[in-house]
Amino acid sequence: MSIRIGILGYGNLGKGVEKAVNANPDEELVGVFTRRDPSSVKTVSGAKVYSTDDLKNMTGDIDVLVICGGSATDLPKMTPEYAKLFNVVDSFDTHANIPAHFAAVDAAAKAAGKIGVISCGWDPGMFSLNRLYAHSVLPGGKDYTFWGRGVSQGHSDAIRRIEGVKDARQYTVPVEASLQAVREGKDPELTTREKHTRECYVVAEDGADKARIEKEIKEMPNYFADYDTTVNFISEEEMKRDHGKLPHGGSVIYSGSTGDNKHVIEYSLKLDSNPEFTGSVLAAVARAAARMNAEGMSGGKTMFDIAPAYLSSESAEELRAHML
Amino acid sequence: MSIRIGILGYGNLGKGVEKAVNANPDEELVGVFTRRDPSSVKTVSGAKVYSTDDLKNMTGDIDVLVICGGSATDLPKMTPEYAKLFNVVDSFDTHANIPAHFAAVDAAAKAAGKIGVISCGWDPGMFSLNRLYAHSVLPGGKDYTFWGRGVSQGHSDAIRRIEGVKDARQYTVPVEASLQAVREGKDPELTTREKHTRECYVVAEDGADKARIEKEIKEMPNYFADYDTTVNFISEEEMKRDHGKLPHGGSVIYSGSTGDNKHVIEYSLKLDSNPEFTGSVLAAVARAAARMNAEGMSGGKTMFDIAPAYLSSESAEELRAHML
Repeated sequence: MSIRIGILGYGNLGKGVEKAVNANPDEELVGVFTRRDPSSVKTVSGAKVYSTDDLKNMTGDIDVLVICGGSATDLPKMTPEYAKLFNVVDSFDTHANIPAHFAAVDAAAKAAGKIGVISCGWDPGMFSLNRLYAHSVLPGGKDYTFWGRGVSQGHSDAIRRIEGVKDARQYTVPVEASLQAVREGKDPELTTREKHTRECYVVAEDGADKARIEKEIKEMPNYFADYDTTVNFISEEEMKRDHGKLPHGGSVIYSGSTGDNKHVIEYSLKLDSNPEFTGSVLAAVARAAARMNAEGMSGGKTMFDIAPAYLSSESAEELRAHML
Repeated sequence: MSIRIGILGYGNLGKGVEKAVNANPDEELVGVFTRRDPSSVKTVSGAKVYSTDDLKNMTGDIDVLVICGGSATDLPKMTPEYAKLFNVVDSFDTHANIPAHFAAVDAAAKAAGKIGVISCGWDPGMFSLNRLYAHSVLPGGKDYTFWGRGVSQGHSDAIRRIEGVKDARQYTVPVEASLQAVREGKDPELTTREKHTRECYVVAEDGADKARIEKEIKEMPNYFADYDTTVNFISEEEMKRDHGKLPHGGSVIYSGSTGDNKHVIEYSLKLDSNPEFTGSVLAAVARAAARMNAEGMSGGKTMFDIAPAYLSSESAEELRAHML
């Protein structure tokens, strides 16, 4: 029997989950749930669209609800709320607030006998797993995370809020020399500026003061002030033609040792589409959540708590026979 | 309370486990167990040496027995045998025989209420995990495993069995152009010869026929015939000076997609010491085995069945707070 998946929220990430669920033969997409008027939403694959109000009447129709909302305000409310009714999976990524979010989801899921998996994706998610495996195998080493080259939506949004900016795309780029030093096991101490640069492509409004926009970007605290930032003004056509995708990726590099012997572990991703890869991770975790709950497990979980075999559509026997 | 570890078998791998257990503050090395005369074995760290005959009287003193034997004849007998008395961990690496070995260990461990984890290390082990995660997240993609640059002990041994060879070291080397094509997501079809080359360093006996030795190496079926192999004759001093270590490593590269968007996942290892890294994986898995058994789990397991958090000495709360 297929695992029946619902998607709550239909932005870029929700569309990524839709594509992933449709690519998994053992999963079935029940529908997309939206806070907007359902008749105003058309899904890419033709999946049904429901109002979030319908969810409470569909607890028998959905095995796992994948919640695709923002970490700032949506997920802290939605994930604990829906963990009372469904097994849920989210991609909560505000690192500092993970313990509080976990506690809320854990309490709700435990009380309902459901599973609630938070912070799935690639960082947090696959990158976290690789940090954990490396630290566990070689205690006392040092991990480095480099992001990019890829589009940071948060930074792109921050530029768009500047007066005179029509559209913007920001690429986070790792500093090649630092990446190389880490790969060679040199264990450098790196400042924020030495790890990444920021590359901005901006469409200005007609007659806007470009020098002022560039200055405002480069001096923006937290987002840009601590980085070497380049700003390129481009036309709307160029933006459309050259910056329409949302690629991302990066590397987790761990440098550890056994006595005098050094060991370097690297996990890296080159993704054409950040939301589609993240959606694919969520779809695999949804499979694990359904299976773990069917075995009687409940409560809050992260990818750290999921035995890898649960993520696969293949049986334990098949995996041992040809993947081990 | 520390996790009490015993090591059965004291070759390169046993020494690697010894070093790793001593580097893990939450683990305690009870001793090394050998089939040789214990008085003839001196451990690197000064750990006690016992005869394997003592094991049956020490079931209350050891939480996990790490079995460091060969996959051809030792482990198929030893792992099921000792799974009747202890939680056990091994590095069984004969891929074709994993299902049979698993079945034997599973039956013994289940009957005894113990955990038996087989095939731990980096391949099988960390590489297998990365194949599994990638296939689960992006179904329908293609995985490539490249080994090296590193010493293959099996191939080095095969050369040593040739008449006139005093000592030998064989390095497996990935073909850079193929690695590059895979990293770029080109999904090439690669023959054995196109994936790896084999580099041999040989110390010949005085007066041995080097041309014959080189020919015998290059034409050896399975080991060398399907590869581009180079043979370098060196002196005993050069062997000692330049080839005393056992470095290894490699990459698992997965190329998948979501519709038109390509994604490339790479996990790579650069290891100064193959047995010490493998020993470090075994020490982490031993921690997981002890914890899982303490929670009531039993039976045969692989790293696919171990939730990553079990491998870490840190608590779930700590991991969520700073590693996720």
